[in-house]
Amino acid sequence: MQPYVPGEQPPAGARVIKLNTNENPYPPSPRVAEAIAAELTADAATGTPGERLRLYSDPAASALRAVAAEQAGLPIECVLHGNGSDELLAMIVRACVGEGETVAYPYPTYVLYETLARAQGAQLAVYDAPSDFALPSALFTTDARLIFVASPNSPSGVRYPNEQLERLARGRPAALVVVDEAYATFADGDAMALVGELPNLVVLRTLSKSHSLAGMRVGLLYGPAELLRGVAKVKDSYNLDRLAIAAGAASLRDVAWTASNVARIRGARQRLLSGLRALGLEVLPSEANFVFARFASAAAAAAAYRFLRDQGILVRYFPARMLDDGLRITVGTDDQVEAVLAALQARPTVS
Amino acid sequence: MQPYVPGEQPPAGARVIKLNTNENPYPPSPRVAEAIAAELTADAATGTPGERLRLYSDPAASALRAVAAEQAGLPIECVLHGNGSDELLAMIVRACVGEGETVAYPYPTYVLYETLARAQGAQLAVYDAPSDFALPSALFTTDARLIFVASPNSPSGVRYPNEQLERLARGRPAALVVVDEAYATFADGDAMALVGELPNLVVLRTLSKSHSLAGMRVGLLYGPAELLRGVAKVKDSYNLDRLAIAAGAASLRDVAWTASNVARIRGARQRLLSGLRALGLEVLPSEANFVFARFASAAAAAAAYRFLRDQGILVRYFPARMLDDGLRITVGTDDQVEAVLAALQARPTVS
Repeated sequence: MQPYVPGEQPPAGARVIKLNTNENPYPPSPRVAEAIAAELTADAATGTPGERLRLYSDPAASALRAVAAEQAGLPIECVLHGNGSDELLAMIVRACVGEGETVAYPYPTYVLYETLARAQGAQLAVYDAPSDFALPSALFTTDARLIFVASPNSPSGVRYPNEQLERLARGRPAALVVVDEAYATFADGDAMALVGELPNLVVLRTLSKSHSLAGMRVGLLYGPAELLRGVAKVKDSYNLDRLAIAAGAASLRDVAWTASNVARIRGARQRLLSGLRALGLEVLPSEANFVFARFASAAAAAAAYRFLRDQGILVRYFPARMLDDGLRITVGTDDQVEAVLAALQARPTVS
Repeated sequence: MQPYVPGEQPPAGARVIKLNTNENPYPPSPRVAEAIAAELTADAATGTPGERLRLYSDPAASALRAVAAEQAGLPIECVLHGNGSDELLAMIVRACVGEGETVAYPYPTYVLYETLARAQGAQLAVYDAPSDFALPSALFTTDARLIFVASPNSPSGVRYPNEQLERLARGRPAALVVVDEAYATFADGDAMALVGELPNLVVLRTLSKSHSLAGMRVGLLYGPAELLRGVAKVKDSYNLDRLAIAAGAASLRDVAWTASNVARIRGARQRLLSGLRALGLEVLPSEANFVFARFASAAAAAAAYRFLRDQGILVRYFPARMLDDGLRITVGTDDQVEAVLAALQARPTVS
């Protein structure tokens, strides 16, 4: 079994423009550091900061889930917390898929789905997306136990309409449909309205991108309470530490901060998309905080990747079928967008 | 499947003496809060504290593993990090046990072993400990794929000699022996010297108890590099957040702080043990930060549990075979030890 390999991390202190792992270029809400400081000074009977860290964290992460549930207009039982959305994906696979059962998803998508399904000994049903990266029609007739749909998807940036997601879940009542909305905060719409409407659909979110908390590992799963109870059975008791719970709750509460950063990133996304098209590249319309730009050939894409890297700009190159002629470029600050466009403009031509 | 149920957590702000989940009564090293503050102010290009949290944490947690490896006198490849030792236990089961293979451990012990083995669809081989809670002899002839030995064990507090652990690993070369040393820092010895000497033995540690970091979720696994590479394949990429990595490394470095708290707890343990025996209770000699005190009957133990609870003192009662006549009492501060002894002295007699 091959483990999932995440995007490379440059050495600490390296002067690079990091547009390869879809991190938010803006800091998290200042309320996050305040909430962490408050947790460190609370109950300090001895006057030593950090005293509360000696006590286990809340297995139910109620302080975090309460905010998430309120904002979603759902009961708290309809929200489950994970150590990043990656842990929730792993929990879903372990709780819902027996050895030999099938996990389905479109290709291309988030590579972790395959890693987790293989680790569980599951069968894979992988359906190639059409050239516009829409939802493959074969997915609607799969007999899988579990269906993953990232929406917006990566690396395409394409979001699937709720009508399609609802049709998928209604048409496959024996399957659980997981709508992985890691990037939905940057999109024009999302599937949260379907939560509770369908007994076999859950929506997954993360604070990594939209809330600039990739380094704190906070994921949230929204779905029917009974279903989440089943998933929670395979959860590590204390899966979130005290500071992650405090940081996540504070971050969710600062709605204005998130909205402001999302608006900036959406603006920069449009500029990046236009700039890349002006360079003659084919770019899919993206609803995420990245765009996927296609070059004339795989050789041209790989050469552009290396050239950018030599200029201190990291983007993501996937040496894989349907993807090796493209680069996934995270939407950074306005300055970073200009820098990547200028570098691509200056790149040597590859025949 | 029944999920693992951790010890109860009193509501925030409740005035209780909490001796039920083996937390350390002393705060973590002041270096921990300093390291967290440093991580929050590092790289703050925009002047917003917490800016670095927007970036993913190090999947390899190198800053933490480097300190742990150096202190253990091992190469860094011989240390693996987990979101608490619970996550490492789960990873070991998932990486090493196929459906239908067998997981063995003594009874009584940490209940999570059973939960994880059942979640994996494994067979259980559970061997009753003799009345002194020594290692059951049947364990030495098990044909299990994986053997868990908590040492010191819970709730007995009994530590198993290295000679026995070595004999177990050498005698069962097809099995992986996991020595779960969650409490070893409070003991008179440990099995770290066996790491690297035996190809099929690993030692598991946590910073929850000895380093007062239960709320930060940091576990460490020590073993042969090749074996740990296999376990790491099922690891979530970013399983520790930035602050947990920083807190864990700082905490490990403050050796004097840990040693001082451990010495205080060992002193209080002796006082608790003597005091309980003076009350006529049978108490096993413990090498952990708790003691297991046995009452005249299950009814007497349950009554003592409820009486303590009514006095605002939480201890752990296990309504289970071989254990229901006892209470597991965490060693707290000297004052807390006096309080629990005074309360037990004052309890009504149960016939």
